[in-house]
Formats: sequence, C-alpha cells, structure tokens
Amino acid sequence: MTPRVLLPWSDVAVPAGLEAACYDGTGTPPGLDGVEFYVLPYDSGPQPPELIARMPSLKAVQSLSAGVDSLRPLIPAGVTLANGRGLHDLSVAEHTLALILAAQRNLPRWFRQQRTGSWDREHTRSLADERVLLVGYGSIGQAIERYLLAGEADVVRVASTPRAGVHGVDELADLLPGASIVVLILPDTPATRGLIGAPELAALPDGALVVNVGRGTAIDTAALTKEVSDGRLRAALDVVDPEPLPPEHPLWQLPGSIITPHVAGGSDSFYPRAKRLVEQQLERFARGEPLLNVVR
Amino acid sequence: MTPRVLLPWSDVAVPAGLEAACYDGTGTPPGLDGVEFYVLPYDSGPQPPELIARMPSLKAVQSLSAGVDSLRPLIPAGVTLANGRGLHDLSVAEHTLALILAAQRNLPRWFRQQRTGSWDREHTRSLADERVLLVGYGSIGQAIERYLLAGEADVVRVASTPRAGVHGVDELADLLPGASIVVLILPDTPATRGLIGAPELAALPDGALVVNVGRGTAIDTAALTKEVSDGRLRAALDVVDPEPLPPEHPLWQLPGSIITPHVAGGSDSFYPRAKRLVEQQLERFARGEPLLNVVR
Repeated sequence: MTPRVLLPWSDVAVPAGLEAACYDGTGTPPGLDGVEFYVLPYDSGPQPPELIARMPSLKAVQSLSAGVDSLRPLIPAGVTLANGRGLHDLSVAEHTLALILAAQRNLPRWFRQQRTGSWDREHTRSLADERVLLVGYGSIGQAIERYLLAGEADVVRVASTPRAGVHGVDELADLLPGASIVVLILPDTPATRGLIGAPELAALPDGALVVNVGRGTAIDTAALTKEVSDGRLRAALDVVDPEPLPPEHPLWQLPGSIITPHVAGGSDSFYPRAKRLVEQQLERFARGEPLLNVVR
Repeated sequence: MTPRVLLPWSDVAVPAGLEAACYDGTGTPPGLDGVEFYVLPYDSGPQPPELIARMPSLKAVQSLSAGVDSLRPLIPAGVTLANGRGLHDLSVAEHTLALILAAQRNLPRWFRQQRTGSWDREHTRSLADERVLLVGYGSIGQAIERYLLAGEADVVRVASTPRAGVHGVDELADLLPGASIVVLILPDTPATRGLIGAPELAALPDGALVVNVGRGTAIDTAALTKEVSDGRLRAALDVVDPEPLPPEHPLWQLPGSIITPHVAGGSDSFYPRAKRLVEQQLERFARGEPLLNVVR
C-alpha cells in the first residue's frame, strides 16, 4: 500500500510516492489505514488528536502549534512529533503591537466615541521612548522587538537563561520599577506559573501596562484584577487564567483592561508559513530524512 | 527692555539675555509688550494665534504643527514663521500602525465582545505579506515604513515627485489594483484634494483597507462611504472631510469603518521632541542665528 499522508489542506505540494488525503478537522475523517504522516489541523478542538490512536501505520505527527504539551501523551512510542515553532511568531508579534498601541493610543475610547459620533479629542500616551520589558526572548520576543525598535521604544530583554544583552528572570524585581510596559511571552511551565504575582505587580510604576501573549498562568489573575480595578495598572491580555475567562469575571469590564480571546496566533500570516513548513517536511519524510522541529 | 519669549511650558532651558513668560493657551495671557519670540501652544484653538496681532516687538513665531497654512495670514510682514516639522512623525506613525493593526486584527470585534464577556474566536487578517501603498513619502511616511518593514509587509512608496524607489502619484491607477492596504499621508493642497475619488477606490481589490492620517480632503468622503457601506472596502481614518465628521454621518456606524478624531499627532512622544526643538530655536534666536524649520 502506498504510504498515505493526512493534511488539513488540499493545496500543498505532495512528493511522488506519497498519497495525500485531506482532513480539516470538521466532519467525518477519511479512512486512516496506511496513514504514516499526520498534519493536525490548527486549533480545531479535541477530535483530530484523538484520531492518532486509530492510525496503526503512523510514523510522524506534525503539529502547527508551538506548544504541544497536551499532545505528547497521545503520541504512541516510536512516533515522531514535530511542532510548529516559528509559524506564529509574526502573527503573535502583530497582535502584541495591536494590544500595546490600542492601550497607549486609547483605541477603546475612540471606538466607544464612534458609537455616538463624538469628535471629542484627548492627548494620549505613546509607545516611543517608553521602557518595555520583554519577558521571554525566543523567536516571538525577537519579532516583537523588531516592531518596538522601529517605534523607538526602549527595549529591555529578559529570559529564563541570562546571556549577553538578556537579563535573567531572577533580575525581574530590579527591572520592574523602571518599566512602563511589560510584555509576557512565556510558555506554561512550573517555573513560569505565577511568575507575575502581587509583589511583582506592586513593583511596577503607576499607570504601567501589563501585556500577556504567552500563557495566562504566568500572571496571578486575582492580583492583576485588583491592581487594574484600583486604576493603578492597565492590562492588555490575549491569554488569561482561566481560559475562557468566565463572562462574569470583573476583568472584562474594567476601564483599564483590554482582553482578546487568545487570537494572537490565528491570522492570515500563518498559512503561507505553515504550508511552506509542511511541504518541506513531506519532502524530508519522502526521502527518509530527519524532520525539522522534532520535539520527540 | 530685555527681549521676551513667550513659551507654552515653564520647564525649557532659556538662554541668558532672554526673559521667559509662560502661556499654555488657557486663561489670561501675560503682558505681551517686548515679546520677540512666540511659541504657540499646540492644538489649542483660535485664541493663541490671535495674540500675534498684539505683539508689537514680535520677530519670530514658532508653531509646533507641521501644517501652518491657517497661521500664515496672521503673521505680520517681517516676522519669521517656523513650523514643527518632524515633531509628530513618530506619533503619527504609531497611530497609523494602531489603525492598520486594529482593522487587520479585528480589534473592534474583540472590544465589542468584551462588553458581553464573550470568548468567541475567529481567524483574522494579518499585516505580514500584505502589499501596503504608502502615498506620501516624507518623514512621516518613512517612520510608518520602518514599522511596516519590521512587520514584513510589502511596502510600495508613492510621492508627488517620483524618484529612485518611489513611484509618482501619476502611477496610482496602476498600483491600486495590487494593494490590499493604502495609507494616505498627504497635506491639503490643490494637487492632493480629491486624489482618491470613486475611480481610484473602484480600482482597489475587494476587502482593501483605506487608511488616512494626512488630511481628510485627499479622499472623496461620499465615494468612500459608498464603498464601505457596500462592504467592498474597509476604512480606518484619523482625518476626514469635513472635520469634525457630523454625528449623523453614516461613516461612523459602518461595520468596516474605524474613525479616530484627528488624534494621530497628539501623544506623549511629541513633548520631549517639541521641547528639544524649542530649546535649539531659543539658542539660535539668542545668538542671532537663522532658525530651523523656517517656512516664511
């Protein structure tokens, strides 16, 4: 039987010797016999990962997400797992800038005024010259930094492993009082959980903006809600803890709070990059070469 | 009598030999006798310019705006007029990015959902890979371009005077069909008025975004309203024609329309830059040297 690959799109180039089937995560999946390479549809709920158990010939699973922690337990021994590292960097960076600029340039106020046709004007904060703490300095942090430097912000880099030009997270207590904007781009790990709690928030100057585009668990939500409710800090969050944030949670309605429903990674910039990666992986798979982005 | 300078702030360095008074545009101005150098408060209505006629010793007027057309008729013969070229570049560039990213990343939807605490998600457009026509390639256009390049957009430059790497406005008809985002950064002149009318808008592809941060008169408002109302084009405007846009104007309430009340230039990034310019000008004035940014 010809080795089969199961892909979320029908418009990618498939090398000779492989037979492609399409499954975008909706409806009934095609037959799974002979599927050796499975590209999981992006962000489509629990059903696609559950199919893995029904693929007796499976050799490799390609996720299009950077984080694959929830997937690992589902991958049988001997099956390779590759992630989507880098595919979402620019999408997340764009959304991060959208959140920062929306907060600094008062977009919630202008959108509110638009509903009544009000031309009422006000001077706003800016991004230029602001000191921005980038906490998490991987490829997404670097994509955000390119935007921030174009806007003449003063960027301070922080990462779990300190290195030349990058502070360690253990220096956060010293860095927070000097920052007017803090951007968190951290995965959910035991080390990052609750990293920004009440003492860290208290260390920020009045009016500072807390931005989270990594995982919600990095911030103590109750402590942040208290500070924003007091009008002392502002927040712009694409990720929260818990997720979804319950409709009755006070953080939704606070004046200094902007919340988007974990959409930073999901934009058009993703698809061309994702398809290029899948085509490269299929070439490698067909030639028996090691895959890129292997995490297990 | 010691030559006097009238400034909108009290915290700028004033050279020896000049006596400073402060007038921020509100309340009763100080005595105007002996005022030789007048820095107009930024964006503060008609009263400050009207004072010019009451300054018998006036030698120079410093505006903090880039556009000084409305001021020219008020400047007596023999008085130098200098403008605020460059002071607002970064502020306008930031706001332009805020408008573009808000439109591409669906911020109006997320802000609307925030009112009901809804976690409903949707894939959005992006800025990366989009072809952005920058119409007006002065210092503001260049500041916007730095942001766009950081975001891996495909920038096409257009200006009234074509030069290496910059198309002329006479090429617009050929360029519009290939652009998904058009950014207008044009002054109000006979040549720019109505530059983007019904035929130019019709040349844009479906779903394209029209951004205006220059002057509202560059666009035929009725034609744009028609295209946005039809759902064919989207708009993100900081300037409109007329201004203020009347509360009952349909453009306010159309789903594909974002309007901010001419606030792109008015943010904190302005003040440090404005004060640095004023200090340089006072030094030059005290030494009898030519001022910077002289427009008349």
